[in-house]
Amino acid sequence: MSTITAMDTFDIRFPTSLELDGSDAMNPDPDYSAAYLIIRTDAGDGHEGHGFVFTIGRGNEVETAAIEALRGHVLGRTVEDLLADMGATWKLLAHDSQLRWLGPEKGVMHMAIGAVVNALWDLKAKRAGLPLWELLAGMTPDELVALVDFRYLTDALTPDEALDILRAAQPGREARKEALRAEGYPAYTTTPGWLGYSDEKLTRLAKEAVADGFAQIKLKVGASLDDDIRRVRAARAAVGPDVRIAVDANQRWDVQEAIDWMAHLAPYDIAWIEEPTSPDDILGHAAIARGVAPIPVATGEHVQNRVVFKQMLQAGSLQVLQIDAARVAGVNENIAILLLAAKFGVRVCPHAGGVGLCEAVQHLSMFDFVAVAGTKEDRTIEFVDHLHEHFITPVDVHDGAYWPPSDPGAGNEMLSETLAAYSFPNGPVWKESR
Amino acid sequence: MSTITAMDTFDIRFPTSLELDGSDAMNPDPDYSAAYLIIRTDAGDGHEGHGFVFTIGRGNEVETAAIEALRGHVLGRTVEDLLADMGATWKLLAHDSQLRWLGPEKGVMHMAIGAVVNALWDLKAKRAGLPLWELLAGMTPDELVALVDFRYLTDALTPDEALDILRAAQPGREARKEALRAEGYPAYTTTPGWLGYSDEKLTRLAKEAVADGFAQIKLKVGASLDDDIRRVRAARAAVGPDVRIAVDANQRWDVQEAIDWMAHLAPYDIAWIEEPTSPDDILGHAAIARGVAPIPVATGEHVQNRVVFKQMLQAGSLQVLQIDAARVAGVNENIAILLLAAKFGVRVCPHAGGVGLCEAVQHLSMFDFVAVAGTKEDRTIEFVDHLHEHFITPVDVHDGAYWPPSDPGAGNEMLSETLAAYSFPNGPVWKESR
Repeated sequence: MSTITAMDTFDIRFPTSLELDGSDAMNPDPDYSAAYLIIRTDAGDGHEGHGFVFTIGRGNEVETAAIEALRGHVLGRTVEDLLADMGATWKLLAHDSQLRWLGPEKGVMHMAIGAVVNALWDLKAKRAGLPLWELLAGMTPDELVALVDFRYLTDALTPDEALDILRAAQPGREARKEALRAEGYPAYTTTPGWLGYSDEKLTRLAKEAVADGFAQIKLKVGASLDDDIRRVRAARAAVGPDVRIAVDANQRWDVQEAIDWMAHLAPYDIAWIEEPTSPDDILGHAAIARGVAPIPVATGEHVQNRVVFKQMLQAGSLQVLQIDAARVAGVNENIAILLLAAKFGVRVCPHAGGVGLCEAVQHLSMFDFVAVAGTKEDRTIEFVDHLHEHFITPVDVHDGAYWPPSDPGAGNEMLSETLAAYSFPNGPVWKESR
Repeated sequence: MSTITAMDTFDIRFPTSLELDGSDAMNPDPDYSAAYLIIRTDAGDGHEGHGFVFTIGRGNEVETAAIEALRGHVLGRTVEDLLADMGATWKLLAHDSQLRWLGPEKGVMHMAIGAVVNALWDLKAKRAGLPLWELLAGMTPDELVALVDFRYLTDALTPDEALDILRAAQPGREARKEALRAEGYPAYTTTPGWLGYSDEKLTRLAKEAVADGFAQIKLKVGASLDDDIRRVRAARAAVGPDVRIAVDANQRWDVQEAIDWMAHLAPYDIAWIEEPTSPDDILGHAAIARGVAPIPVATGEHVQNRVVFKQMLQAGSLQVLQIDAARVAGVNENIAILLLAAKFGVRVCPHAGGVGLCEAVQHLSMFDFVAVAGTKEDRTIEFVDHLHEHFITPVDVHDGAYWPPSDPGAGNEMLSETLAAYSFPNGPVWKESR
């Protein structure tokens, strides 16, 4: 038996705003950041658990403080106990009544819980010598159902229904693992489409994306209708008729505005409209989905928890569900969301990019393919070619696909040099910028 | 012209868990707390702006850190500019794109914005020499509409509709101010109903509440059905048939569970069922409302923002809307919510209790009566007789009513001795408890 001896936190920020990478209609100048933690033990096996919340700059110190607030639930605990029953561990963190008041189950505190939960999964996967997707895909349906908190879900999904979904997918698991290794998991790229880029840069990057084998690109929209029409037309000319073009408004519109705006972009064969309005507006998304059909509505990167996803599925608010590795309370809650999506027959196309989101979320989609949905038809994981060099196991994306990681862990671990260099405000990168 | 010279923050906690005051089905041992701030200026008029977020203990330091993260938006600004256009000031804080990522518009960061906004309103009211309710009730409809951010609201409420509501209520403003001073604003009490109290204490306190003139009491429920039936029956026996009894499940149930449970309590003439399930579950609340009718559903103390309230009104999720002074982004957002409630014809009965919530929220209900809804029919503000002695202008509640405050300010200001004594972890109260 071993004990958790430390939970160290780090405020890591990359000065991305200098290049307008990541610029969109709501976020003109993000500094991609991570509120980061490392869980250490006395097991003597060299394994640590790493996890993070992705933020875009200011306030990363608040998120780091929220992770610190969870230290008392982790420090001094027996590692084997915490990791053996990750369903109970999730509840230990998420059901702390005093901390719950700060959400409940949303925002800063909930994301912090997600980071700690993900760090524990990282540790568990490393101790098992498996990449997270394979660790999860090797668990029995009963073990997987025990990871999920069904509170507030039973009007849409009961434990028995979840069990049925997982049992139905059990027979083909091995064949799908092989398919994953042979074919990869489809990826699309947002690299060409940032709002701060010129038309020339957009066109060049869109052509590069096609040459790199991506079957879909995504463009940011929502700041100016004229600009959007011009940019979507330029992108369509660059990629030809067969590559899909999705657009992303990053919550910029009200309901009617979204419907009206999209009528102007519809002629360019739009794969989906992402985040047309507030991520809290379940009924608004449903109205937009009716108003822009047959263009599918995609959302999820800012959807706060499983309860809101449940309702979006109940109401027909989305046709593409975009999980995010670092927005909800970690792997456990994302499994709940994958099960909800499977119950409602809605495809999951994860949000990624940022810092480490690609590295983390690929495990969830691959697990979903092998053990939950049983298909990757019409599914694709976002890819942005930024900041991967800071991770010990960066994603392997080529030929328009994510290729399954084989290194043990959940993909969350940054290089120790990165943690030192980009530490805010006292790391050398930030000291020099002043 | 004067400048904001300081924004000081305080982590204030009261050891209420020792007495089980405030205990309910989800919160067994709260330590009522406030993440508190004081805005100071160089105006030389002696006025400060005070504001707070109410929390229940652990994590209050995270909330305090979130308030700190807003300092850069306030410090060094010209006081007159910030206070002259509080609509623009609200957007300055709420639309910070990097901080917005931490919500958006929910949880720790959003509540922190509310505390700063409320501190600025406190300062503005003190400088005007008016209690906040009277300051607001003296603004023109156009000025009030300019306080509201209509983003994500226009499918339910447009600025023109808001203007119509406010103009319709303009004629009777003076008469209603007089009525308020003559009659007070109805109050109900939760003091008898905490889950940790014995039946004997419940009965005694319920009888005292009736003797004190309250027309409604509220009981916590949701932990044990047998206990609830016994406690509701005891309360009904204590207060007689004419005093209303509301019950509050503090988010304990799933949808069907809520409907089934309430069928057992319905025979005791229940005034409303409060927080039957997750505050995020708009569709779940609507299903419960249909299932427990004619018992009204009440919720709001944990509803994160105006967008969720909008949908709850659209979906028929609630029949009693419970604003909270410290959950959303301050006075401005609560005005948006009051306008939404008026548009949908739903009564507003604020959540209060905690620390300072009574002192703060009474201003909003009184403003609502004078200038928005124009009625206090069937409306009542929660009252809990705790911790008022820590405020410089404690509420005046007697004869079952809140009596309108006449002191300048928004009611948020704690005694300086309290700030010193209850500071966590180094104030004397906490030092001695170790």
